[in-house]
Amino acid sequence: MAIINDMTKNIDVQNLEDAIGKFVSDRDWDQFHSVKNLAMALSVESSELLEIFQWMKEEDSNLVRNDASTISKVEDELADIFYFLILLSKKTGVDLDTALRKKLIKNAEKYPVERSRGHSKKYNEF
Amino acid sequence: MAIINDMTKNIDVQNLEDAIGKFVSDRDWDQFHSVKNLAMALSVESSELLEIFQWMKEEDSNLVRNDASTISKVEDELADIFYFLILLSKKTGVDLDTALRKKLIKNAEKYPVERSRGHSKKYNEF
Amino acid sequence: MAIINDMTKNIDVQNLEDAIGKFVSDRDWDQFHSVKNLAMALSVESSELLEIFQWMKEEDSNLVRNDASTISKVEDELADIFYFLILLSKKTGVDLDTALRKKLIKNAEKYPVERSRGHSKKYNEF
Amino acid sequence: MAIINDMTKNIDVQNLEDAIGKFVSDRDWDQFHSVKNLAMALSVESSELLEIFQWMKEEDSNLVRNDASTISKVEDELADIFYFLILLSKKTGVDLDTALRKKLIKNAEKYPVERSRGHSKKYNEF
Repeated sequence: MAIINDMTKNIDVQNLEDAIGKFVSDRDWDQFHSVKNLAMALSVESSELLEIFQWMKEEDSNLVRNDASTISKVEDELADIFYFLILLSKKTGVDLDTALRKKLIKNAEKYPVERSRGHSKKYNEF
Repeated sequence: MAIINDMTKNIDVQNLEDAIGKFVSDRDWDQFHSVKNLAMALSVESSELLEIFQWMKEEDSNLVRNDASTISKVEDELADIFYFLILLSKKTGVDLDTALRKKLIKNAEKYPVERSRGHSKKYNEF
Repeated sequence: MAIINDMTKNIDVQNLEDAIGKFVSDRDWDQFHSVKNLAMALSVESSELLEIFQWMKEEDSNLVRNDASTISKVEDELADIFYFLILLSKKTGVDLDTALRKKLIKNAEKYPVERSRGHSKKYNEF
Repeated sequence: MAIINDMTKNIDVQNLEDAIGKFVSDRDWDQFHSVKNLAMALSVESSELLEIFQWMKEEDSNLVRNDASTISKVEDELADIFYFLILLSKKTGVDLDTALRKKLIKNAEKYPVERSRGHSKKYNEF
């Protein structure tokens, strides 16, 4: 089953939640983790990701995996974002997998293929 | 195996990537998805989450799961963040699970338990 | 007139634009300053401000001017935000003073006193 | 003197602070305006500006002043950012003009012309 999991890129969220939970409780940091503060932290981390790209050309940003130093920073920031996403999911009781699948269905209705193809307008602009 | 997955909250990332990939290619939106633009979109979505809490007391933010209307917005925004996180992970070749586990090890070194317990100072401030 | 200006806290935006313009052109940085990139930079700086407060209690954030080290960071970040705001204003041709006065009038209509008093609901929620 | 002000693009910050102060107190909104919350609001508004450009080409973002509908949104968001910047400046006691002039001097030292010209590296990367 380990092999199957590897092949299908399964993420064991329960195991990650446990590892994060231990990291946090070892440091007694739960007192800082209101949902409001976690949402701030997630936003701050996503801006640290953004900072990497702020002066970069779009085409260069697509090559970032070839640059060891930059991709290492990107990996760090994506990890931080995922960390706070999991904490928020736990604190709010939102299941990420279910939420994303529901959102894809909702967005498929908001953005019908024939009206959305090839442009980036918002659903309330076309 | 479905039962085991449910119990362990496994997320089948490959399946989500495929669903997102089809959603995007059906609309010919890949042309907008440079890594730079996806990082912007992730940041924008994380701010939409933040907006929900900007005038809320911390203690009220912790009760958000009891308010059907607000938790539904939170679920929507967490889904959007997860959506762009998966797209970025795919485009940059960063494995989210591995990245997070590496980061937890790194942070455990940057924030030793005895020096970090009970306060929120950054590692370069204590 | 200098005395009057000091008393009324006038900001000579033209003079600031000139100082910023020289700083930028001396370094040949105008090539990076598309409106899109400047909007990213403004957002990144506003998150650096946010980071200062992410684990802080609201009441402590109100006392920040009494803490020399923290207020110095706040001053730095507010300066960075103002820097990019002026650059964006120049690049887009938006006059900040006029824009803000127009917005106050618009918001006074969106948020009539009697319906908005004492709560933080958005205009489309009450 | 009005003519001189117009020519030099002076902004009468005291007058704007008074107008904002009255707008806020009329609605009894000061109770929501902790420095922490205002920093969140500024960040949220700067992301709303960012959203306008997230799928736009850099070169198109530079032409935004020619598109009446888009420039009107940009003006709205710049006004919102300036609004919260003024509120934060007042609450923290930071003078925006002084802060920006100090920062330009500091940045001129961090980014010496000969070492910074023509690239966008951070001071700690060159």
